[in-house]
Amino acid sequence: MIVNVGDDFEHFGLKICPDLDTVCYTLAGLENPATGWGRRGESWRVMEAVAALGGPDWFRLGDLDLATHLERTRRLRAGRPLHEIAAAFCEAWGVKARVLPVTDDPVPTIVLTDEGELAFQEYFVRRRWQPQVRGFRFAGAESARPAPGVLEAIRASAAVLIAPSNPFVSIDPILAIPGVREAIAGKPALAVSPIVGGEAVKGPAAKMFRELGYKPSAAAVAEHYRGLVSHFVLDKADADQAAAVREIVPHVLVTDTMMTDSQKRIEVASAVLSWFGREP
Amino acid sequence: MIVNVGDDFEHFGLKICPDLDTVCYTLAGLENPATGWGRRGESWRVMEAVAALGGPDWFRLGDLDLATHLERTRRLRAGRPLHEIAAAFCEAWGVKARVLPVTDDPVPTIVLTDEGELAFQEYFVRRRWQPQVRGFRFAGAESARPAPGVLEAIRASAAVLIAPSNPFVSIDPILAIPGVREAIAGKPALAVSPIVGGEAVKGPAAKMFRELGYKPSAAAVAEHYRGLVSHFVLDKADADQAAAVREIVPHVLVTDTMMTDSQKRIEVASAVLSWFGREP
Repeated sequence: MIVNVGDDFEHFGLKICPDLDTVCYTLAGLENPATGWGRRGESWRVMEAVAALGGPDWFRLGDLDLATHLERTRRLRAGRPLHEIAAAFCEAWGVKARVLPVTDDPVPTIVLTDEGELAFQEYFVRRRWQPQVRGFRFAGAESARPAPGVLEAIRASAAVLIAPSNPFVSIDPILAIPGVREAIAGKPALAVSPIVGGEAVKGPAAKMFRELGYKPSAAAVAEHYRGLVSHFVLDKADADQAAAVREIVPHVLVTDTMMTDSQKRIEVASAVLSWFGREP
Repeated sequence: MIVNVGDDFEHFGLKICPDLDTVCYTLAGLENPATGWGRRGESWRVMEAVAALGGPDWFRLGDLDLATHLERTRRLRAGRPLHEIAAAFCEAWGVKARVLPVTDDPVPTIVLTDEGELAFQEYFVRRRWQPQVRGFRFAGAESARPAPGVLEAIRASAAVLIAPSNPFVSIDPILAIPGVREAIAGKPALAVSPIVGGEAVKGPAAKMFRELGYKPSAAAVAEHYRGLVSHFVLDKADADQAAAVREIVPHVLVTDTMMTDSQKRIEVASAVLSWFGREP
């Protein structure tokens, strides 16, 4: 599993990796289902005491979650690379899957907005994705190196799955790392649309499509991944777009993609993988 | 109140100032009477989660205490000086006294031991002051500048009080900052012996005297401060040393100095200050 690091930032002197942690917590069964981020059974004693000192509490760091950032920061400062730390944490949490940050280098996503450039978490959390988006920049991507194992993992895989994450700020920052797009090219690659019925299932994807001048739709997502993916899955609510999508991507599946609970997650994944395995 | 910063260190990427925090917590009534450090009503969720990741837990950082280190680190990285941060925290905690770190510059105490040089907290907390001491070094003291207000506070005071803290690792690192010793010179200055009955009331002071080749005693403390203090207070248990101490320091008070509870603290302080005010 290759994870975006464009969301990563420094806060209170600590290295925070929101995407990496959410993926690992979820695979470990430690995730907080109420928030969609952070840890289950979380408490907020540290943040409350920070707020009492007049410190910023717009980025909510739970007590358990803070431990991850503290120990990661300590290891980074001791010279260990991010991918090795992620592997060690996954082992400590009993995660069986291999989770790889796409790069060990900091490649922060910068959001170009009508108010100027904003660091990703400033835009996403502090400003609750309200500024109008003009584009994105992945700072330092051109000179970043894929983390050891990333290109090898892609090359060794029979196929690549692109999760129904935000194409602009979750998937593109992965594809921006030199070598990743090339490693995927020529492989069977499947994307699931994060836009259903013209809206994002979660988050600002539809709003971003609009602000960049596109009508948000499954077809717009397919167009975004043109040339990269061979297979595309759209929700049954968008069945009328299947023909249009087939002009962009050769193999198209229309199915229920709404993963509203963990049972539905398993069902959607099974249906998609079973089709992907059958399609040439 | 001018406070030692030689104990300060970086841990998990955070700036920890144990002496400064203990002084501020105590003045704020937030101190933990059970431990002698950290905060009252403390919890340990973060540290437990750090330990679950295999991180170091030899330096115990409580959840409430961590908030202090996080917010201080954030402000330092934003370019604010330590003395300003200390003043802001004191205001937030309702501390009326002025608390000044002796310098804004890092001047870490290095303990020279039979096992080589040890960073102070490695020696003091991790190794529980068990290595044999050969001497001390205050790294960078010669080029450190007193924090703004430190020399002015000393010069504006009618007299200087040296707390019954460890002379080697709590008081000497303050005196090592250029200008401090000179500002005290010529002023009425009073020290209270931290050695009572040949032993330290708390901590490694007596052990250090022995390892450096001196018999631990109130007289040895007076000798350590020779030329700096004009007034010296020793415990009634050491009354037999009063004559010897008078050879070193002109004004000597023998009294009960054991501050076993907050009532006794007030009584000892009152007795000492009242004598100090009367003595020429």
